Amino acid sequence: MTTGEISSKGELKYEGKAKRVYATPDPTEYIVEYKDEATAFNAQKRGEWAGKGSTNNAITAHLYPQLEAAGIPTHFLEKLDERHQRVKAVTIVPVEVIVRNVAAGSFSKRLGIEEGTPLPRPVVEYCYKSDALGDPLINTDTAISLGWASEADLNRIRELALKIRDFLVPYFEKRGVRLIDFKLEFGKLPSGEIVLADEISPDTCRFWDAETNEKMDKDRFRRDLGGEAEAYAEMLRRVTKEVDG
Amino acid sequence: MTTGEISSKGELKYEGKAKRVYATPDPTEYIVEYKDEATAFNAQKRGEWAGKGSTNNAITAHLYPQLEAAGIPTHFLEKLDERHQRVKAVTIVPVEVIVRNVAAGSFSKRLGIEEGTPLPRPVVEYCYKSDALGDPLINTDTAISLGWASEADLNRIRELALKIRDFLVPYFEKRGVRLIDFKLEFGKLPSGEIVLADEISPDTCRFWDAETNEKMDKDRFRRDLGGEAEAYAEMLRRVTKEVDG
Repeated sequence: MTTGEISSKGELKYEGKAKRVYATPDPTEYIVEYKDEATAFNAQKRGEWAGKGSTNNAITAHLYPQLEAAGIPTHFLEKLDERHQRVKAVTIVPVEVIVRNVAAGSFSKRLGIEEGTPLPRPVVEYCYKSDALGDPLINTDTAISLGWASEADLNRIRELALKIRDFLVPYFEKRGVRLIDFKLEFGKLPSGEIVLADEISPDTCRFWDAETNEKMDKDRFRRDLGGEAEAYAEMLRRVTKEVDG
Repeated sequence: MTTGEISSKGELKYEGKAKRVYATPDPTEYIVEYKDEATAFNAQKRGEWAGKGSTNNAITAHLYPQLEAAGIPTHFLEKLDERHQRVKAVTIVPVEVIVRNVAAGSFSKRLGIEEGTPLPRPVVEYCYKSDALGDPLINTDTAISLGWASEADLNRIRELALKIRDFLVPYFEKRGVRLIDFKLEFGKLPSGEIVLADEISPDTCRFWDAETNEKMDKDRFRRDLGGEAEAYAEMLRRVTKEVDG
């Protein structure tokens, strides 16, 4: 497929809360469309704002090639236009991975740990990807026993998740952003290789300004703080900022 | 301390939902008292019945020496009377361990798996022991990061939990009982050794009759099925039954 040629968008394969995935004439590739819709609390809260999709597309398209260069295989091929990406066709592993550096959100609430408390070592959590069940917390035993992923795949996923953390934390630190936690999804290529899929954006990460601890992510929408469009745009500016080192 | 001498019950060290733990003149030993009170759903539901404490005491006192003989270190020393046990003084690890052979209870509800579905391989789950938080589900990363247990201790706990399962499943099978799932607590001796603490009883296990799948455990109380005293007494009869092999 030629760069920019999105007329080849075929059958809708999957519609998620923030993206649509389309088949292409090439069975090894999909086109991902980033929507402006936002949902929270398992889609009980809904909204949208202009520029959300294009911002998340641009942030992901900026980060994934750098992750590839750092040795992390991803599904990303290229950004096609404001809303569209060309990616490798993968089968999504139905186990979402959350990496936590600082207590926040559901973790703080569930465990009674004040939001903002740094974790002495990173915590990797796993959730079963199921809208119907509200993405419940699981552990690797459960995923293996119920056939959602093999032990080998989960070991690889954990290894990659921590490697991604090791790349992202200093990357954002240099741009004045604390990476509090983030959610990843992985996919499987026909070869069996596990690759990073989905997106890395203010929808899937908690970003706090390093100086003010101001939230620059979807919590602005979740918690009715306002200014979500500005926060996302600011995150795009910081992500794409050239810095030394 | 001499067998049966419970006059040496000292300071109340800890009161749980179903037991009290007392100091003794010997700092290396505690006395455990089994209460008749029952609670469910994080103590939102309360009840009691005569014989509950003595039955759980007797079942635990029958099983723990056999677990010791099978190579599983426990806190148990001896049964003193109907309600009391002498145990080694341990520091309880605040991580409860649930071993699941068949989907039931919170696991079924959370993951949308029909109760009674056998699990292809056992699932070990961990909860943070906190009445205030309702014993929330955690994973080993969380326990290590928040300092509730070391990685070495959690590896040992998992090893022991699976060894206990391997002992208990055939033990109950021979007595016409399916062991659906069970909850364990572990303690630490001053030497650092991890030992099985708490109890193994119809309060902490799901027992289903092998022929009828009738519940013979605390679910009779939790779910208002009635007949809890009879079910616990029947479980004591089966646990103490001499069988071949």
